[in-house]
Amino acid sequence: MFGQPSAKVVKGDPNKGSGLESKSLKIGVVLSGGQAPGGHNVICGIFDYLQERVNGSKLYGFKGGPAGIMKCKYVELSTEFIYPYRNRGGFDMICSGRDKIETPEQAPQYPLISLVEINSRKNMALLDFRCLILYGHHEFQFKQAEETAVKLDLDGLVVIGGDDSNTNACLLAENFRGKKMKTRVIGCPKTIDGDLKCKEVPISFGFDTACRIYAEIIGNVMVDARSTGKYYHFVRLMGRAASHITLECALQTHPNITIGEEVAAKKQTLKNVTDYITDIICKRAKLGYNYGVILIPEGLIDFIPEVQQLIAELNEILAHDAVDKAGMWKKKLRSQSRELLELLPKAIQEQLMLERDPHGNVQVAKIETEKMLIEMVETELEKRKQGGAYKGEFQGRSHFFGYEGRCGFPTNFDANYCYALGYAAGALLHSGKTGLISSVGNLGARVEDWTVGGTALTSLMDVERRHGKFKPVIKKATVELEGAPFKKFASLRDGMGPQESICPIQFVGSTADDLNPYSAAGTWSTSVGHKLWLIFGRNISQVT
Amino acid sequence: MFGQPSAKVVKGDPNKGSGLESKSLKIGVVLSGGQAPGGHNVICGIFDYLQERVNGSKLYGFKGGPAGIMKCKYVELSTEFIYPYRNRGGFDMICSGRDKIETPEQAPQYPLISLVEINSRKNMALLDFRCLILYGHHEFQFKQAEETAVKLDLDGLVVIGGDDSNTNACLLAENFRGKKMKTRVIGCPKTIDGDLKCKEVPISFGFDTACRIYAEIIGNVMVDARSTGKYYHFVRLMGRAASHITLECALQTHPNITIGEEVAAKKQTLKNVTDYITDIICKRAKLGYNYGVILIPEGLIDFIPEVQQLIAELNEILAHDAVDKAGMWKKKLRSQSRELLELLPKAIQEQLMLERDPHGNVQVAKIETEKMLIEMVETELEKRKQGGAYKGEFQGRSHFFGYEGRCGFPTNFDANYCYALGYAAGALLHSGKTGLISSVGNLGARVEDWTVGGTALTSLMDVERRHGKFKPVIKKATVELEGAPFKKFASLRDGMGPQESICPIQFVGSTADDLNPYSAAGTWSTSVGHKLWLIFGRNISQVT
Repeated sequence: MFGQPSAKVVKGDPNKGSGLESKSLKIGVVLSGGQAPGGHNVICGIFDYLQERVNGSKLYGFKGGPAGIMKCKYVELSTEFIYPYRNRGGFDMICSGRDKIETPEQAPQYPLISLVEINSRKNMALLDFRCLILYGHHEFQFKQAEETAVKLDLDGLVVIGGDDSNTNACLLAENFRGKKMKTRVIGCPKTIDGDLKCKEVPISFGFDTACRIYAEIIGNVMVDARSTGKYYHFVRLMGRAASHITLECALQTHPNITIGEEVAAKKQTLKNVTDYITDIICKRAKLGYNYGVILIPEGLIDFIPEVQQLIAELNEILAHDAVDKAGMWKKKLRSQSRELLELLPKAIQEQLMLERDPHGNVQVAKIETEKMLIEMVETELEKRKQGGAYKGEFQGRSHFFGYEGRCGFPTNFDANYCYALGYAAGALLHSGKTGLISSVGNLGARVEDWTVGGTALTSLMDVERRHGKFKPVIKKATVELEGAPFKKFASLRDGMGPQESICPIQFVGSTADDLNPYSAAGTWSTSVGHKLWLIFGRNISQVT
Repeated sequence: MFGQPSAKVVKGDPNKGSGLESKSLKIGVVLSGGQAPGGHNVICGIFDYLQERVNGSKLYGFKGGPAGIMKCKYVELSTEFIYPYRNRGGFDMICSGRDKIETPEQAPQYPLISLVEINSRKNMALLDFRCLILYGHHEFQFKQAEETAVKLDLDGLVVIGGDDSNTNACLLAENFRGKKMKTRVIGCPKTIDGDLKCKEVPISFGFDTACRIYAEIIGNVMVDARSTGKYYHFVRLMGRAASHITLECALQTHPNITIGEEVAAKKQTLKNVTDYITDIICKRAKLGYNYGVILIPEGLIDFIPEVQQLIAELNEILAHDAVDKAGMWKKKLRSQSRELLELLPKAIQEQLMLERDPHGNVQVAKIETEKMLIEMVETELEKRKQGGAYKGEFQGRSHFFGYEGRCGFPTNFDANYCYALGYAAGALLHSGKTGLISSVGNLGARVEDWTVGGTALTSLMDVERRHGKFKPVIKKATVELEGAPFKKFASLRDGMGPQESICPIQFVGSTADDLNPYSAAGTWSTSVGHKLWLIFGRNISQVT
């Protein structure tokens, strides 16, 4: 697929020949991995394209995710079938999946577990599409996909998924072409985490909706904190590999403290993070504010080098040695790791020791980072209180917002964006393209002015060393500390911290057209002079 | 105040004398206890009434809740001051509070703690208005309120609060009248819990908004459960004394399992509840569904008689005896209580023993009921699996939705309702009324047809024995098992349980005028044939 050019969907004269094939098409579509609002609309976009432009075509929805392809479990989509799912959240039209391969026969060589660079969130998703195809990369899985493609006489397959699923879409496209099969493959950028993007794919779908849902709830909690005046709410948000959601929510709501990937860039320790939070709490206490909201990305623990080190050592020790009650085993830890372990609250220490996956590895994803930080901050504040440096009262409250945002009703933006992605995928397949990711650009403009096309999947790829081999993969786009969103945040941060927090109202701005759900009169967006920050893709606009 | 007639606000001929006093008024307003969406609009309603109808009047907002009255901490409200808070959630305009009385001088006799009939949620709110005045009922607190009333030359005071705060509003009204003071007192029905209501006060404000917010999040989680197909989400919802929120959310979203006050009425045990949940999970597993959503009211533990018994015994034992490690102390428990304690997951047992309030009492409110149930169900399922009666896979996920709903933007209903309550309070004070609760009726009709007036607070009261004395109090309105909402729920319940859950979309209906926030096109409410249940106050309408 290397060197494949990108494609553009342009207006044609309906009276002239379009140059597109006129024979009917058989297309398959699959939802891969975690839910993101708008997935149904991608499918509707493909369906409508085929209905409107390629007479007699068929669209098959593979059921339960990639396993549906392997097992050839599908449903033929009809107008009636998809109708109730239009503009709706969830993936329940055909469901997604990360299916287990139960027997060795099904997965003859399944090597993923040992990969150390796979972080724990991925570990939870071990067995989805990415693994079935990418890591395995076995003839076996491709063979199953080939069989299904032949059986259904597929002209095309649309893979709706994240970075790994799109990597696999590319490999599958190459495989099909190598085998001289007619089946073409197009990817679609899905993930609420917002970490699949590039110049031509400004944002993955679902991110906008999820952030709005989280931001609304965070806003409510912020007003609650301010009304009550006595709680610090520690809010953990989804986003393990990258903290785009946390950053976006911070820009939308202006919490007092936001932790992000900077921690990794600055090589900070857990103690640094604790001190940073504690410092701001102390400053606020001096101003009479004993309340606030703190945002933490799910992946915080992964961002801290010393924690990664500790976990690596623990995995090693726990795999080979018995753990004695007296704690003699701890001597096997490097001194820095031992100190870190001792610093952690008892409950977290136990979690690290007890909760391990079937392969004996510590389950980082299960650690409730927000509760851990509450305990660590509490301990630090107690010390400072005894030293006379802190006189406030601290009560922490913990929240984790995850499942709440993955299946909400898509925002108008995501509804439109997804429909366009699907429609484009239809057009790309119709014109015989393969190995592209459906891409819609100029998203800051009116919908009429959006650009629609397909971008070569290889252009998103880097070569990474995996399994001792070099593999082309789409790299997760992490938060760029030099990017506009983070710089905007950094410029605001000092004002958000110790000072009274800015009104956390999520009004609408120029690039959105929803009203806040609970804004009663709908008059606020024009009549109130509150400041509003909206970030869209990578553009920030400030509307006053 | 006994025998006080109710009042009605009616249209008058503006050209004729209204019979109302024309001199300007000085009114105070206070927000008491937990936040509920719409509180700001009550204040705006009072303010606008005074501005429009009683020239030269002043409205004082007491700051930080009832303590603001006691300490005479207030702000004079102006057009500019209240403007940004119109139609907005939260209580941050003047804040609410449950302030601590720190020294004995401030609270000479503070007897509340020993009251066994006070449940734990109330215990958390020990020191708010209700206590300052009702339970104490000391000359001391009244004296402070009197001093403030005299100092500010108050013609009236509006108390925005729940059942206890309105009880106190009545006592304060009586006290002021007894002292021949001119200050009149009007209450306003506030609480998201929905447990302050009667014939004339069909609903407390905030309930509608909070339920919509929770229902939206629950709906998202339900779609997520269905899309993923592998988790049971246990959702704990606010509502300790009564489970109105849980019931309303169940009617709006149709979860698979809903637990409520029936448990108390049927004198069920924790084992019964566990078995009930487990049975449905097993039935669903047979149908191939290993996922679902379960709603649990915060007060579940309080509803179960045997748990109350256990806690009473624990409180007694822990107060007087040492707890030996070998567990000999457990012999002091009655056998039924001992069995129950052994049945509880380890973590919950520890919570019961360790987490106690300053008075040594077990902190029921801190028990994470949803996590407890997950563990108990897991254990029961494991047993059944070994016995061959269950072959599914169970993965529980826990949620607690509380702070997320107390400060959301009010729904149109709450925004209008609250404004009307405030406007009515202004009119009632203007006409010299006291000891009434602002009441707006006929809420199922268009806003133009709502009835507005005041209901005698005494008519809401029962006499209860507290502190060994008979006291008039407003009783919390619990869910009536013979009432229309519960009967509707009961009629649907069997269909919700084992079967595939009904689409949890919260569309709008005849009595609401918001669109679902994330409904993209706004076309769904008319175009889709999904069934919609809306409950409003005590009326249920089914719109197809």
